[in-house]
Amino acid sequence: MTIERRDVLRSAAMLGLGLAAPAIGQPTRKLGYAIVGLGYYGLGVIIPQFAKCAHSRLAAVVSGDRAKAERVAREHGLSPQAIYSYANFDSIRDNPDVDIVYVCLPNGLHAEYTIRAARAGKHVLCEKPMAVSVAEGQAMIAACKTANRKLMIGYRCHFEPFNREAMRLARSGAAGKIRFVRSEHGFVQGDPGAWRLKRALSGGGSLMDMGVYSLQAAHYMTGEEPVAVTARESTDRRDPRFAEVEDMIDWTLEFPSGAIAGCLSMYSANQNRILLMGDKGRIELEPATRYDGNRMWTGRDGREREVTPPDAQANQFAGQLDHLADCAVSGREPIVSGEEGLRDMAIIKAIYRSAREGRTVRLERGA
Amino acid sequence: MTIERRDVLRSAAMLGLGLAAPAIGQPTRKLGYAIVGLGYYGLGVIIPQFAKCAHSRLAAVVSGDRAKAERVAREHGLSPQAIYSYANFDSIRDNPDVDIVYVCLPNGLHAEYTIRAARAGKHVLCEKPMAVSVAEGQAMIAACKTANRKLMIGYRCHFEPFNREAMRLARSGAAGKIRFVRSEHGFVQGDPGAWRLKRALSGGGSLMDMGVYSLQAAHYMTGEEPVAVTARESTDRRDPRFAEVEDMIDWTLEFPSGAIAGCLSMYSANQNRILLMGDKGRIELEPATRYDGNRMWTGRDGREREVTPPDAQANQFAGQLDHLADCAVSGREPIVSGEEGLRDMAIIKAIYRSAREGRTVRLERGA
Repeated sequence: MTIERRDVLRSAAMLGLGLAAPAIGQPTRKLGYAIVGLGYYGLGVIIPQFAKCAHSRLAAVVSGDRAKAERVAREHGLSPQAIYSYANFDSIRDNPDVDIVYVCLPNGLHAEYTIRAARAGKHVLCEKPMAVSVAEGQAMIAACKTANRKLMIGYRCHFEPFNREAMRLARSGAAGKIRFVRSEHGFVQGDPGAWRLKRALSGGGSLMDMGVYSLQAAHYMTGEEPVAVTARESTDRRDPRFAEVEDMIDWTLEFPSGAIAGCLSMYSANQNRILLMGDKGRIELEPATRYDGNRMWTGRDGREREVTPPDAQANQFAGQLDHLADCAVSGREPIVSGEEGLRDMAIIKAIYRSAREGRTVRLERGA
Repeated sequence: MTIERRDVLRSAAMLGLGLAAPAIGQPTRKLGYAIVGLGYYGLGVIIPQFAKCAHSRLAAVVSGDRAKAERVAREHGLSPQAIYSYANFDSIRDNPDVDIVYVCLPNGLHAEYTIRAARAGKHVLCEKPMAVSVAEGQAMIAACKTANRKLMIGYRCHFEPFNREAMRLARSGAAGKIRFVRSEHGFVQGDPGAWRLKRALSGGGSLMDMGVYSLQAAHYMTGEEPVAVTARESTDRRDPRFAEVEDMIDWTLEFPSGAIAGCLSMYSANQNRILLMGDKGRIELEPATRYDGNRMWTGRDGREREVTPPDAQANQFAGQLDHLADCAVSGREPIVSGEEGLRDMAIIKAIYRSAREGRTVRLERGA
């Protein structure tokens, strides 16, 4: 179902229908975003992208650091009324300039701010992973449903041109019958004080961070839902970075077609690769899911042909921001909905359980 | 212990001591090999390598096809007395021209011909996997011990210059602390009639063939013995190729250091790669274990520097043949002994068991 939605949307985008037909769902004005959290991602990565957006603009900032928020507001031409603290965040309901709230906070705060944003009548773009538990994810979906607002998860790779072209190639049968997808994401986490290493904020270690990329790639490369997971964790608990969360998890997802995805996340080595192997060939991305500089190859045995998508210069962040703006206006469901985020939460839970119990865990259909 | 042996030997080889000091273990004549099995590997791959050997020569052939054996004997200047059938193979004991028997038969025949060769007073080089069960492997080792003959397994990658350089780099700490080794081997098995797909001859599917490369690389890249294995299998049993044996197995080996090896073997897609990830960098080979054309890169994040070993032109097959000739004369143990083969048989058994039972299987120390 997710794939069908995705394909419909992709086809529309490829034909230029999206831009040609504003009447069926394009905003006639740029929708206003409030960025919640002015950390590295919200401030350093997301805010600069609005300059490249067709249907989205920065309308407000939410921060616990008033001085920082004032500086950002000045730099982006926002009035002081567009600055919110975490305490007065709920009053954003009275700001008609804000259509969408983008939650760029640590994972442990996603549920609270998504639910408060929905109750304030705003659509929500929430960073991945959507929450730190299945129950939180369900509550977030329910809150947005009750408020009749859209909920989208920040799975930016669905808007990244190399990953989109890889999905298209995989679906087209370019690699033949898909047998195995390898998806590995890691980096050397150097700072023992990082919030990502504090369980209360992160909900877990590398799996809750880079692992989400590996898991998503397994979905969108196979186009299938997994039915079982088998996982192993390895963490040096004497390492001060890993007192609270795991370093490395390796897991296998089994799909109904018989395809397997072998996934890895880690905080102790650098890796960023997706490789699909089929009986007729392969599709490989490395780096696969970076902000930029991604590359792709196809071949029968190895990296035989480098592939550059026709829209290689498309900006994945602008694509993501504009997509939710479009959905907010058209009423369409985002291609990466809260339900997709929730399914990933259920799989993450099963991965942890499998690693803990040392056995394969079956996933419920649609889990 | 294996690693120590290996390092001693490598150091000796690198200093040229091997060739400089024949008195301490170099043959003063070329030792004679009998090749058992004139199939693709014995006839097509191995026999031509003797031309490149310093201490080994072809001395006899063993085949069920008399006409083929006569043709090969003629082409290589062997007398009719150097031709054996499987029926009269035991009379090879009376041929002083044969020092070593190289068993190039299907896996299911390795034990029988290794044991018969040892009883005939010959050293044995046996193709991998050494057997189709742990019990067979034990019997092979016992037979060679009783006969006071060397037993070596055809793990040719230990003589392959790119793999040797990768081992050296890994041991030197070039990648820092080793966290993860990825080892993937597969090809599209096209012929449903291949002996490798018949359980009685192969003992299993891709794991007993390409999987042995993945398993070996996990050993020699980490330099450790695994303590646990977790495996999943995926085979389309409706595919006529896979009526008797498995297509694809993905498995994880855990090592005492906390490193993990994620391994894959398959008969339904092409893949040939080894990747070591450490906290300071990586070592990658692709293709990794081919007869020739292997390549290697190091880097912090990806393929940053291509590495060509100083002895890149060294012939792995000649290196393997000459190594056992040297051991036969010097009395040293081969760097890839029967015990190493047996340990792999025990791990293979655990991989199959883990996949079957859907749970992690602990390996006994030294298993």
